[in-house]
Amino acid sequence: MTTNLFSHCDILDTEQFSRDDLELILDYSHRIHKSDRSSLSKLLDKYILASLFFEASTRTRLSFETAMHRLGGKVITTVGFQFSSINKGESLYDTMKMIEAYADIVVIRHPTEGSSHLAADASSIPLINAGDGVAQHPTQALLDLYTIFAEKSNIEGLRIAFVGDLKYGRTIHSLIQLLCHYKVELVLISPADLSLPEQYLKNIRESELNFIESEDLKDILDCDVVYVTRIQEERFTHRSDYERLKDSYTLNRDFLQLSPKLNELLIMHPLPRVKELSTDLDDLPNAAYFRMAHYGVSVRMALLLLCLQVSLP
Amino acid sequence: MTTNLFSHCDILDTEQFSRDDLELILDYSHRIHKSDRSSLSKLLDKYILASLFFEASTRTRLSFETAMHRLGGKVITTVGFQFSSINKGESLYDTMKMIEAYADIVVIRHPTEGSSHLAADASSIPLINAGDGVAQHPTQALLDLYTIFAEKSNIEGLRIAFVGDLKYGRTIHSLIQLLCHYKVELVLISPADLSLPEQYLKNIRESELNFIESEDLKDILDCDVVYVTRIQEERFTHRSDYERLKDSYTLNRDFLQLSPKLNELLIMHPLPRVKELSTDLDDLPNAAYFRMAHYGVSVRMALLLLCLQVSLP
Amino acid sequence: MTTNLFSHCDILDTEQFSRDDLELILDYSHRIHKSDRSSLSKLLDKYILASLFFEASTRTRLSFETAMHRLGGKVITTVGFQFSSINKGESLYDTMKMIEAYADIVVIRHPTEGSSHLAADASSIPLINAGDGVAQHPTQALLDLYTIFAEKSNIEGLRIAFVGDLKYGRTIHSLIQLLCHYKVELVLISPADLSLPEQYLKNIRESELNFIESEDLKDILDCDVVYVTRIQEERFTHRSDYERLKDSYTLNRDFLQLSPKLNELLIMHPLPRVKELSTDLDDLPNAAYFRMAHYGVSVRMALLLLCLQVSLP
Repeated sequence: MTTNLFSHCDILDTEQFSRDDLELILDYSHRIHKSDRSSLSKLLDKYILASLFFEASTRTRLSFETAMHRLGGKVITTVGFQFSSINKGESLYDTMKMIEAYADIVVIRHPTEGSSHLAADASSIPLINAGDGVAQHPTQALLDLYTIFAEKSNIEGLRIAFVGDLKYGRTIHSLIQLLCHYKVELVLISPADLSLPEQYLKNIRESELNFIESEDLKDILDCDVVYVTRIQEERFTHRSDYERLKDSYTLNRDFLQLSPKLNELLIMHPLPRVKELSTDLDDLPNAAYFRMAHYGVSVRMALLLLCLQVSLP
Repeated sequence: MTTNLFSHCDILDTEQFSRDDLELILDYSHRIHKSDRSSLSKLLDKYILASLFFEASTRTRLSFETAMHRLGGKVITTVGFQFSSINKGESLYDTMKMIEAYADIVVIRHPTEGSSHLAADASSIPLINAGDGVAQHPTQALLDLYTIFAEKSNIEGLRIAFVGDLKYGRTIHSLIQLLCHYKVELVLISPADLSLPEQYLKNIRESELNFIESEDLKDILDCDVVYVTRIQEERFTHRSDYERLKDSYTLNRDFLQLSPKLNELLIMHPLPRVKELSTDLDDLPNAAYFRMAHYGVSVRMALLLLCLQVSLP
Repeated sequence: MTTNLFSHCDILDTEQFSRDDLELILDYSHRIHKSDRSSLSKLLDKYILASLFFEASTRTRLSFETAMHRLGGKVITTVGFQFSSINKGESLYDTMKMIEAYADIVVIRHPTEGSSHLAADASSIPLINAGDGVAQHPTQALLDLYTIFAEKSNIEGLRIAFVGDLKYGRTIHSLIQLLCHYKVELVLISPADLSLPEQYLKNIRESELNFIESEDLKDILDCDVVYVTRIQEERFTHRSDYERLKDSYTLNRDFLQLSPKLNELLIMHPLPRVKELSTDLDDLPNAAYFRMAHYGVSVRMALLLLCLQVSLP
């Protein structure tokens, strides 16, 4: 056990990380991912995780709870509007003062933007933001980053495409912010209506990354990684635009046959997918989207350890 | 730890079992039932169970979770429509690819017939069907079978009555299929409208079991076991038939006084009961229906071990 | 491990306790509160707690589950109307016969007055009432009592004020019943419409405690402890009375500056609070209301041990 193993108590947003932080998280995640499970199974056996999901997100909740169980920790859970006291008017501040009496670390998902910062201010125990409104979902971005690292052995020098709704896609914004710490090339593919907002383009330019913007899915074909997201009908001003475009951003095996890197192009997706990623890709060795759930557990184990300042053996 | 201890990875339906399978499950269940609890309390301490109840079934869910805890395992749980990603259109296939990254074994309850087969095909980890629609609930049938074995020391040669809704009673259909592996006699008592469907009668005939069909509850009086189920009003075409018949299939102490085997007739019920089983029977030593919850935990501990190929010490 | 460590199997109401019982519970709670957590972390590792919350009460549920986890125990949980079998007409009696097959001890919260007695009669395992309707919430009263003990080192001789809705406040009624075992002075402050019911005044007189009744919040200023509760609008016959009175019973820092004991007056609240307790009090060292969550875990650990007849090392 070390003090000051990690310079953060809380995981609140992607802006908080330095390149050194990211390297430490990737290193921990990777050592955990390659470990024999039994070597880690007692590390947090004196700790309790409060898993507070004010809105349902089963994928994320079960990922954190699995991570805690694999480290030998205990879990207390609440989902949705079970918080009767909040219905009686209790503030999030008061709720967190209660939780810090029960748990050693807390994971919080909340529909309101900024609530994780408010909760962290109230609480004397480490807090991990598992998504607050449209704002931030930093552990998703870290698992995306670790997926690239684990599958490609390195991040530097890769050409990485983002496809879909770049305007509203929270996971895309967060991952791009992390990638700004690396020398990568970005290929940003979306309908014009859903292109990447200026604030993120500014980040990319300031980080001196090469990038192109495109509306043509074919621009993924010379990339090393493609990160696909859903395009939701309700995001379009005109339904006719949605109808015209929806199939242009559907990735399937026929399309990928065009690529000289068919078996090298790493295919990622934050899931759930609907139609934008054909099931005929599922058997490709480079289809990484199901493996991301495995990487996610390793990353969250790393974050639980680091926030609690417990080092790996 | 043994490989190939058990010839199945998944528990999906009652048709999958050979007589040898049933003997192994009964043997494991019985050894567990008679064990000192502390001798079993670490067997699965490296394992995580995903308890996925897409519809609520608290009796079954808590039984499996208890079984896992008694073996030292961890549990991640989800109940009902918490699966926001399914609401977004995620397929059961994709959900299972996520779950296999988190857990070592999964128990699934789902309202749709056939969903457990679909889930098992998607998943590389063992899967136990805890009820899928009207189709199958194999672990209930196994706990019914083990109850008879535990209480009567043997199954062969018994005369076993089924009372109630033999047409729609899922638990009755499943238990009869298991009993076709044994030389038992069956007494099938129901209103004519709710008699056992032909497909199950065919099984019984092919297994060369003696059986009678009857509408008269008195035919339980020379049996060794009676398995009572609810008759639901909504199953009748004519409400008048329900009103006429409902009390004819109510078992109480007065009625049982008629039996020469009053203290030997094993009384079973899958629970919950409403009026078909009088509370004045609860104190009889041969009223086994509350003890079935104990047997159920032992059977589910056996199934968790066998599916994970972990042998008893 | 001792037998007959504690003279009760169940914790059902505050009337059941003798002064000796209270001393034992306070002693256990205090020894636990001062213990190194790791010295307690295996005491209940062979036990399972069933946490049955037929109505949501997250504060209480997570407190008990935390207590069980800190003692190394396992937890099975159900919240709200997940009990499909109860929706099918199952009685609480039958539900408890199932639960006793799964768990070693049960905590139950139920909206119906008297249901915890009914549940305890059905069940052969220890049962703790975590609130049944308007009737009783004995573990809240015990944590209130222990808070006073822990913060003031003693209970005898203290002058203790209750403020707010003394007519309907369940936690106030329960704590007063426990305090009748001690030589304390009571100051009962409420609007006339919401004064303490005669049955509790009778208890106080029979216990020969000094007390005053008052409508003036200033009467807290010479007390050692003040226990504040919410005044709910719906309790008043006339809305105008509520509007006139609501601010008269709001405690804030300006008001407390009047007290010669500003830094000694222990401020308690069962939480959740709304406006009756100003947030400008939160930083006062004598504001104990957030620390009560910590004391609550210790008290519930004590109760789990005592009901299971497991002694502290």
